[in-house]
Amino acid sequence: MAIIINKPLDMHLHLRDGDMLKTVAPLSSKSFAGAIIMPNLVPPVTTREELVSYRDRIKSSIGDDTFTPYMTLFFKPTYTKEFLESIKDELTSIKLYPAGITTNSEGGVSGFNVEELRETLDAMSELEIPLSIHGETNGFVMDREAEFVSIYEMLATNFPKLTIIMEHITTKESVEALDRFNNLYATITLHHLMITLDDVAGGMLQPHLFCKPIAKRPEDREALRRVALDGHPKVMFGSDSAPHPQDAKESCGCAAGVFTSPIALQVLTQLFMENSTLEKLQDFVSNNAQKIYKNISVPKKSITLEKIPFTVPNRYGIVVPMYAGETLAYTITKIER
Amino acid sequence: MAIIINKPLDMHLHLRDGDMLKTVAPLSSKSFAGAIIMPNLVPPVTTREELVSYRDRIKSSIGDDTFTPYMTLFFKPTYTKEFLESIKDELTSIKLYPAGITTNSEGGVSGFNVEELRETLDAMSELEIPLSIHGETNGFVMDREAEFVSIYEMLATNFPKLTIIMEHITTKESVEALDRFNNLYATITLHHLMITLDDVAGGMLQPHLFCKPIAKRPEDREALRRVALDGHPKVMFGSDSAPHPQDAKESCGCAAGVFTSPIALQVLTQLFMENSTLEKLQDFVSNNAQKIYKNISVPKKSITLEKIPFTVPNRYGIVVPMYAGETLAYTITKIER
Repeated sequence: MAIIINKPLDMHLHLRDGDMLKTVAPLSSKSFAGAIIMPNLVPPVTTREELVSYRDRIKSSIGDDTFTPYMTLFFKPTYTKEFLESIKDELTSIKLYPAGITTNSEGGVSGFNVEELRETLDAMSELEIPLSIHGETNGFVMDREAEFVSIYEMLATNFPKLTIIMEHITTKESVEALDRFNNLYATITLHHLMITLDDVAGGMLQPHLFCKPIAKRPEDREALRRVALDGHPKVMFGSDSAPHPQDAKESCGCAAGVFTSPIALQVLTQLFMENSTLEKLQDFVSNNAQKIYKNISVPKKSITLEKIPFTVPNRYGIVVPMYAGETLAYTITKIER
Repeated sequence: MAIIINKPLDMHLHLRDGDMLKTVAPLSSKSFAGAIIMPNLVPPVTTREELVSYRDRIKSSIGDDTFTPYMTLFFKPTYTKEFLESIKDELTSIKLYPAGITTNSEGGVSGFNVEELRETLDAMSELEIPLSIHGETNGFVMDREAEFVSIYEMLATNFPKLTIIMEHITTKESVEALDRFNNLYATITLHHLMITLDDVAGGMLQPHLFCKPIAKRPEDREALRRVALDGHPKVMFGSDSAPHPQDAKESCGCAAGVFTSPIALQVLTQLFMENSTLEKLQDFVSNNAQKIYKNISVPKKSITLEKIPFTVPNRYGIVVPMYAGETLAYTITKIER
C-alpha cells in the first residue's frame, strides 16, 4: 500500500546559513512543499533586506521551485505598522523569543509588558500577521513551558484578533490552553511525539535528543499525541529540526536541537499507522496549517511513502539525524511536483 | 579561622579498579579517614576472596594506614547465614542494586519478593550487617526514586531489626520516609546538595553533572539541604563520587557519575558556612555515620580547612572533577594523622 501526502508542510524549521544551510535545505525540500523558516541567525533577521537576502540564499541552496520558504522576522517591539505593511508580502509570521531562552535568542523580549508590545501586536493583528512564540520562562527546566502558559493567556486575551502560535509545545498544560482561547494554535515536533526525558537522560545521556524545550513526562507526550493523532484543527506539524555539527552535539556542554527533517514524514507515517489514525496525518502535516496560516500558498507537491525498510544514515554531512543508523518502516518512494 | 574536621567519612564511594583505582584512591585518602567502598566492579564483589583481594588492592593504591576502606558485598539473595558469619569481620555492609539500574548493576535484584529475600535479610539483621540500597525503580527518570519508597517501606516493615541505608537520596519523598521508620537511614551526596536538573540540562547539556539518580527539582534539593545542614542524626555524607574517563563522559551516550572526592570537604565547608550551620558539619561528615554504622572503627585523622582560594584542577589523571577549573573558597591546609 502506498501512502500519499499532499503538500506536506513543516511549520517550524531551522535552516541556519552558509555551509549548514546548503547541507540541510535540500533535505527539507525533498520531503516538504514548504516550511516556516526561523529567523534566529547571528545576527537575527530583523530587516527587509536581511529577510529577502536570507530567502534568496535558501532558494539558491535548494535549486528548484517546489519548496517554499515561508519567511519570518525576529520579533522586536519596535516594529511599526508602517514597517510591517512594507514587508507584509515577504513575510509569513514573526517569531518571538524570550531573551536568552534558546540558540541565538539573546536579543529577544525581556518581561512581557503589554503596553510595550501593544503597537507592534496591534499592527500584526490588523495586518493578519501571525505571532509565533517560543514559550518558556527562565524557570526550572521541567516547568518553563507550563509557567509560560499564563503569558500565552495574557497575550491571547489582550490581542484577541492576533493569531498566536505556541511553538513546539511539549506539555499537557499547553495542550489544555489550546481549547481555552480561540486565537491560540500550536506546532508539535516529531521528537516530542516520540520521546520523553527518559530517552534523553534515563539511561545514558543522549545529546542528540537534547533540545529546548526539553522532552517532558510520559503524560505530556500522551497529551501531545492525543491532539496530533486526532488531527486537532488547531495543531500543526512543525519539526523544529535544528542541525548542529556533530562535534558541537557530542562535546561537553552540548547545544540544544534534534535534526529530523529527512526522517520526519517516514516516522510520522509509522506513528499514525500504528495508532490507526492514518486518515488524520494529512490534516496534521498540511491541511490544518493551510487553514491557520491564511497567508500562505503552497506549491503542488505530493510525497509517496511505502512500507519498505529505510536505514537512516549515520550523518547527513556533519549532522547526526534522529534515529541515526536505525531502520525505519517507511521509505519515501516518489516525489511528484 | 581554621576549620578542623575530625575523622571525616565518605559513606558511599566508588573507587573502581586497576589504573583508575590508583588515580582516585589517594585523592579520597587525602580528605577522608575512611569510606564505604561500593562493590560494583566487573564482575561484582560477591565472595570473600574477591572482597579481601579488592581491599588489598585499595590499600596498596593508597600506601598508608590513615584511610580505612570499609568493604561491601554486592547483594545476592543466595547469601546464607553461614557465609555471612564467615565474612562478617571483613565486611561493613552489603549493597543492593535493583538489576540494571546503574553502572555495572546487571546482576542485581529483579522484583522484591520478601520471601526470596528473607533468609539473607534475617541473617543480616541478626549479624547486624547494614543493607545499603540504590533505591530506584525502572520507571520514568524523575519518578524512579519516589516510586521506590514503597519498597523501602516494605523492607523496613518486614525486617525491623535490619539497618537499611537509603543511598544517595535525591527527593523530598525519601527525606520524608526517613522519619517514618526507625530503621531507615540515608546518605546524601555533595552534588545533590548543590545542583538540580537545571544544572544538568537547563542550559547546555552538562555530562559531568549527569548521575544516577539524576538531580531532581529545586524543592527536592531544599529537602536534602534541610536535613543535611541540620545534622539530622539519620543522615550521613556519602559522596557517590564515581570516576569515569573524560572521553566516556564527553562522548555520545555518556556514563553516569560525578567525581567529587577531592573537592567534597571544601565545598561542604563553604555550604555549611554560608548557611550558618558549620557546627553541624562534623555530624554530617562523621559523627552520624559512626553512630549508624556500629561496626566501624575510624583511624585518627583530622583535616584542617582555611578560607584560602582553591582552584580545582581541570583533570585528575583522566578524570574531570566537579567544579573543574573553578575556584572554591576553602582549601585543605593540614592533614593530621
